Amino acid sequence: MSSKAPLYNRLALIGVGLIGSSIARAARAQGAVGSIVATARSEATRKRVAELGLADQVVETAAAAVEGADLVIVCIPVGACGPVAKEIAPHLAPGATVSDVGSVKGSVVRDMAPHLPKTVHFVPAHPVAGTEYSGPDAGFAELFVNRWCILTPPEGQDTAAVEKLAAFWRLIGANVETMAPDHHDLVLAVTSHLPHLIAYTIVGTADELESVTRSEVLKFSAGGFRDFTRIAASDPTMWRDVFLANKDAVLEMLGRFNEDVSALTKAIRKGDGDALFEHFTRTRAIRKGIVQIGQDSPVPDFGRPHPDLPQEPLPKPYAADGD
Amino acid sequence: MSSKAPLYNRLALIGVGLIGSSIARAARAQGAVGSIVATARSEATRKRVAELGLADQVVETAAAAVEGADLVIVCIPVGACGPVAKEIAPHLAPGATVSDVGSVKGSVVRDMAPHLPKTVHFVPAHPVAGTEYSGPDAGFAELFVNRWCILTPPEGQDTAAVEKLAAFWRLIGANVETMAPDHHDLVLAVTSHLPHLIAYTIVGTADELESVTRSEVLKFSAGGFRDFTRIAASDPTMWRDVFLANKDAVLEMLGRFNEDVSALTKAIRKGDGDALFEHFTRTRAIRKGIVQIGQDSPVPDFGRPHPDLPQEPLPKPYAADGD
Repeated sequence: MSSKAPLYNRLALIGVGLIGSSIARAARAQGAVGSIVATARSEATRKRVAELGLADQVVETAAAAVEGADLVIVCIPVGACGPVAKEIAPHLAPGATVSDVGSVKGSVVRDMAPHLPKTVHFVPAHPVAGTEYSGPDAGFAELFVNRWCILTPPEGQDTAAVEKLAAFWRLIGANVETMAPDHHDLVLAVTSHLPHLIAYTIVGTADELESVTRSEVLKFSAGGFRDFTRIAASDPTMWRDVFLANKDAVLEMLGRFNEDVSALTKAIRKGDGDALFEHFTRTRAIRKGIVQIGQDSPVPDFGRPHPDLPQEPLPKPYAADGD
Repeated sequence: MSSKAPLYNRLALIGVGLIGSSIARAARAQGAVGSIVATARSEATRKRVAELGLADQVVETAAAAVEGADLVIVCIPVGACGPVAKEIAPHLAPGATVSDVGSVKGSVVRDMAPHLPKTVHFVPAHPVAGTEYSGPDAGFAELFVNRWCILTPPEGQDTAAVEKLAAFWRLIGANVETMAPDHHDLVLAVTSHLPHLIAYTIVGTADELESVTRSEVLKFSAGGFRDFTRIAASDPTMWRDVFLANKDAVLEMLGRFNEDVSALTKAIRKGDGDALFEHFTRTRAIRKGIVQIGQDSPVPDFGRPHPDLPQEPLPKPYAADGD
């Protein structure tokens, strides 16, 4: 616990999956809040949260959780945010900040804002971080370190409340950026929603072939398929809601993607090696940028921990080919 | 060095990139061969191979490399295999085994076999293993451990020669499977070639948007895009050749994939949450299978090494959602 005074006295977490439980662990580790009250819809999750000691108090309803809380973070699939906002509205303390962690922001603002009283500060948020696991056991305090948390406060929202929530996210390790909900949804459609949809698609395609058995698909997955299965193992409820809630932006990105698939398909059909080489060289630069800004590790991924590998010095990335 | 006698007296490596240099390191670590002679087309690579001490001898030409070798492994992009076979043919020792590591087998057999003398054993191979890095610095001895190496010997090939090469791959850590070249190309089209093509496509799509900046794409890549960039950072020459050489199987898999993209797109457009949920649940099972057979680590991936994370016990995979 930090020796500094906590930013908020009482944090209410509604939903304690990968993200909610990581917030609980990180907030406690950094002394960011005085106490934590948590709730979850299912009894099994509430029981597990209590067993793990993730909160000072575990209660049965969202309405009970928000009583007396000065920070409320809704950590549930985006499709459930509207009903929860309606449920908690009469119980919110005046001056409280209400936030969320949803991967879509336009729909969350539309669904939650109408229910919330004018006496609270509504500051939607999206920490762009995660793993392929779900549930309260899957969280860890370091999840948000050097990841970006995007805030999408409605116009005219109290600046001090927004700044305080930004300080909370920074305290638990995140970088903070503010943008309009619609722009957020367009950016995430390409950096997150489209990749997930494509990964879900390709894993399904592989599983339905008659000419290649499932056993073959699994055994020879190290050729690239493996990495898609990781993404396609993400929480189905969360992702169903994302695609329903961000339909327009996802469909637009799908359209662009389909055009590009067609172009590369044509290059393969025509045997146009130059076009393929040019495209494959260009995409390498993007990877380099992501590693340079610390959003991925330069350590080579080969599908298992590398106890025998020196982590430093790293292999010279993008060295000349060995031919 | 093992105390047992080496399987082969002299290994000639033609091409010393990620795969070739990993074979050199592994073969030496396991005492699989008496000595290693290596060559590479570029002078810079030959110089680097000598500096790294990967071979007992580095020579300037493929023809010189194969002199007196009882095992020759060609580790170059598949498009270059035919000309190299032609170059080495007159210099091969009678009784030598000639192999390769190409990701396409039908074309390699067609391109190499006609040049090779009847006095050698031709046993094409494909170790399904790799990282996103290229070049002699990128290899390591453990790359093939618990990965599959697929052998595609022509019908009627000497059984003892095939078994000996299988023993070589097992000695350096791989599991070995034998299949027909065409079936190999179909299996790899789905487990490797299609995933790479899609990853290359989506990274290109993201880079060409006017509405989302490259800086935004990089910053918010932790939402899933990041993993595609890793695959799309693979060696452009190698992948150009793969798509040209395995055109028919790749186009067939692309056709299946496009049908499935259309179906999911329609589900999103119609707001069919049940169809999405059902699909996303099904794909999770495939991931589970891959982790169970040890082809990927169950450790959560969040884009950097996890020094602060307990590696054991692992988070309960696929736990109930936290809502």
